[in-house]
Amino acid sequence: MKIVIIGTGHVATILGRKILAAGHEILQVFGRNRLYAEALAETLSTTYTTDKSHLDFSADIYIIAVSDTAIAEVAGALPLDKKLVVHTAGSVSKEVLKPCSRNYGVLYPLQSLRREMTVLPEIPFLVDGNTEDDRALIADFAGTLSNQVQYAGDEQRLKLHVAAVIVSNFSNHLYTLAQQFCMQEKVDFNMLLPLITAIAERLYQFSPFEVQTGPAIRRDEATIQKHLEVLQQHESLKELYIVFTKSIQSVH
Amino acid sequence: MKIVIIGTGHVATILGRKILAAGHEILQVFGRNRLYAEALAETLSTTYTTDKSHLDFSADIYIIAVSDTAIAEVAGALPLDKKLVVHTAGSVSKEVLKPCSRNYGVLYPLQSLRREMTVLPEIPFLVDGNTEDDRALIADFAGTLSNQVQYAGDEQRLKLHVAAVIVSNFSNHLYTLAQQFCMQEKVDFNMLLPLITAIAERLYQFSPFEVQTGPAIRRDEATIQKHLEVLQQHESLKELYIVFTKSIQSVH
Repeated sequence: MKIVIIGTGHVATILGRKILAAGHEILQVFGRNRLYAEALAETLSTTYTTDKSHLDFSADIYIIAVSDTAIAEVAGALPLDKKLVVHTAGSVSKEVLKPCSRNYGVLYPLQSLRREMTVLPEIPFLVDGNTEDDRALIADFAGTLSNQVQYAGDEQRLKLHVAAVIVSNFSNHLYTLAQQFCMQEKVDFNMLLPLITAIAERLYQFSPFEVQTGPAIRRDEATIQKHLEVLQQHESLKELYIVFTKSIQSVH
Repeated sequence: MKIVIIGTGHVATILGRKILAAGHEILQVFGRNRLYAEALAETLSTTYTTDKSHLDFSADIYIIAVSDTAIAEVAGALPLDKKLVVHTAGSVSKEVLKPCSRNYGVLYPLQSLRREMTVLPEIPFLVDGNTEDDRALIADFAGTLSNQVQYAGDEQRLKLHVAAVIVSNFSNHLYTLAQQFCMQEKVDFNMLLPLITAIAERLYQFSPFEVQTGPAIRRDEATIQKHLEVLQQHESLKELYIVFTKSIQSVH
């Protein structure tokens, strides 16, 4: 397929590399910032433009990978007529692309994508399209990038985006708080890394509900009290400890 | 080294297998429950006893791998004189072993260990001993099982145990809540697994503080409001969503 990528951020970069690695042709990068557009075009061995009058009109799919709030604006500014155009956002309706083209949809990567990544990660995709044909075309294209592709309408995609925020942003915040605690208490956070990855990886084998452990689920009050004493000087962590202990005990 | 393992649970089982795989000799398994002791002895190709008068006294190290609350009782019931005895608990002082022997310490595995594991995980160890010689001996022994071994006194070990609870039990609880949400909302939790492992694995490369993303850190109120609406029928998740959003915004 021939692709034009609109946007130059983390998602544009990693999707672009994934698309290239799958054997597609990236015709052009379009971005507002010349330096970013030039850098991404170089990464993807293609050309770039910052001028919408120079947009390449011969692509099969136009991928708008810009920040959530900018999608509608970009779509309004780029009349693509009947060209297939998709955005990559979890919480934005596909309908914001309506002013842009008669054929539109979504290619949402359920993954944390960072420009600096050297190894391309496995990326599950949620896809959508405003006609059955577009949906099928986007799903087929996603299938060349990943073996986990599912159809999801705006509502289902939003739900999985909420769940993604919970399991990734929130757990990453737990790691941040734990690392800050370790630094302040002069113990080595890196000793926890094998544990953290083991907890994540075992989800391929066990349901998290079944493998919950720790003082909260054991209702081990002595240990919980010891831990709260240790957290005496760490108010917000102590608060979270209490919230989680209660939540674990109410779920189990 | 010649080892006797006291206890038959998850930690006893996986530590036993790890010890065997490192080329040590497990002389005996001691347990109160005959069936469990027999099963573990079979796994470890050794003998077992449930009778303390039959305890093998020729081992170099006695590893007490029982529940936190049972350690003191077991230690009191097994007079091991000058034999080196260790427990495996994060939040229990080494001093509970004093009644048991003149040489005691701790071999604490900073990992989530489950009997059912087929592949033995990487296990960082925190070690301690009541004399310098014992400490060195336990550290050397741990070094045959792992390349991440650190010395930690009771207080430091307790601190890392708190941090371990936060990064493993609490993040696993987030996964549980997200899975329940996905089941109720009929979206596929398994689509999130590559994301969850990516977030964990990137800690080897980036500090979690630097790579925090999501609507909270972007202060993206529109998305946060959409997410809270989705969580309308999920009271406790909604509460956690608000707590995390505030905490992320106050840390960053």
